Amino acid sequence: MAGGKTPIGHPARHGERPAYDRDSLLEVAVAVFNERGYDGTGMEEPARRLGLSKSSIHHHVGGKEELLSLAVTRALDALFAVLDEGPARYTSATARLRHVVRRSVEVLASELPYVTLLLRVHGNSDTERRALARRREFDHRVADLVVRAAAEGGVRDDIDPYLASRLLLGSVNSLIEWYRPDGDLPMTTLADSLTAVLFDGLSRQGAAGAGPGGPSGRSYLRT
Amino acid sequence: MAGGKTPIGHPARHGERPAYDRDSLLEVAVAVFNERGYDGTGMEEPARRLGLSKSSIHHHVGGKEELLSLAVTRALDALFAVLDEGPARYTSATARLRHVVRRSVEVLASELPYVTLLLRVHGNSDTERRALARRREFDHRVADLVVRAAAEGGVRDDIDPYLASRLLLGSVNSLIEWYRPDGDLPMTTLADSLTAVLFDGLSRQGAAGAGPGGPSGRSYLRT
Repeated sequence: MAGGKTPIGHPARHGERPAYDRDSLLEVAVAVFNERGYDGTGMEEPARRLGLSKSSIHHHVGGKEELLSLAVTRALDALFAVLDEGPARYTSATARLRHVVRRSVEVLASELPYVTLLLRVHGNSDTERRALARRREFDHRVADLVVRAAAEGGVRDDIDPYLASRLLLGSVNSLIEWYRPDGDLPMTTLADSLTAVLFDGLSRQGAAGAGPGGPSGRSYLRT
Repeated sequence: MAGGKTPIGHPARHGERPAYDRDSLLEVAVAVFNERGYDGTGMEEPARRLGLSKSSIHHHVGGKEELLSLAVTRALDALFAVLDEGPARYTSATARLRHVVRRSVEVLASELPYVTLLLRVHGNSDTERRALARRREFDHRVADLVVRAAAEGGVRDDIDPYLASRLLLGSVNSLIEWYRPDGDLPMTTLADSLTAVLFDGLSRQGAAGAGPGGPSGRSYLRT
């Protein structure tokens, strides 16, 4: 299944001959699934948008569930890659955790349709159950990082590490509800801002010494 | 429309006579809408679970859209109440913002089915569009608080206040994806933990002086 650039057909319209490959088919199908819900959507609408017949699509991919599998695998592979990348720079679990959260925001933004579909999977088929199992594995690896970061003294120890990892990932995942890559907000600003809030807090840095719970930073002004 | 305790019927089963009121009907209908999706669900299943006929339900509520309206109004009223409560204790926008975030978590947890339904509304009817407009108004009021908190020096000024409010509310809203009030995690622990992470950060407090981006807190140990 390497490549994904094998042309699978040509549009029906006379005089135009753009070649469609599996990536284009996947992109269109995922857009339709996200708009209308995966469960209630067939292949008619993706076929219509591509100007292809359903049979010409089925000749090249097994069907709707194979497209779902390709989509969620793409999202999961991108997320898992984040766990292992850049090892030389990160000797502490704390630094790696911060890197993972920041890069997860970037993956979510750059692979938005695929991550959106992944996060809406309910477990109604073998493909969906495999995707949920890999999501849980990713969550566990992040939780392990939080545990190790807490053990090395890099993150606060008054919040359960497993709860902390859920709050981190939940905040990252919530971006699918409103972030649009074609809008005004650059992905790097989004990633910087969410990472800063989650690790350093929205309160003024200088107010941290006042301890949790107190009104923060009113006398501290940065230049 | 006061009360909501007007009995609307009795179950069909012989020998039992629990009275159903509008709150019970609302609770059952909202559970069904959340399980199966509002758009694709009729009143058959709520009626079946209550042991009532559809016509006996329609005699007391106008139908599905009135139930949706009751549900999202309940969620929105609870959220808006948070904006105005406890005024005497909060003279600064910073303290009020923190209070609003913390109490929003509590409202989300205590009104989970209603908030869940609210957050999934797409705007397909007048009721849904009114709900979306009130959600936007709530978001704007929180954004205004962030602006005022930044102006008084209580929150960091290197993150756009409107982006900051989206990140705060997105993190709170993400709880509907996994929090279950009947689980082991107390609502107060959840609210304390998320508020602490969002305002003070997951990093060790003492590491804040090292500035954003650096590995944090390795030499700082609290007792």
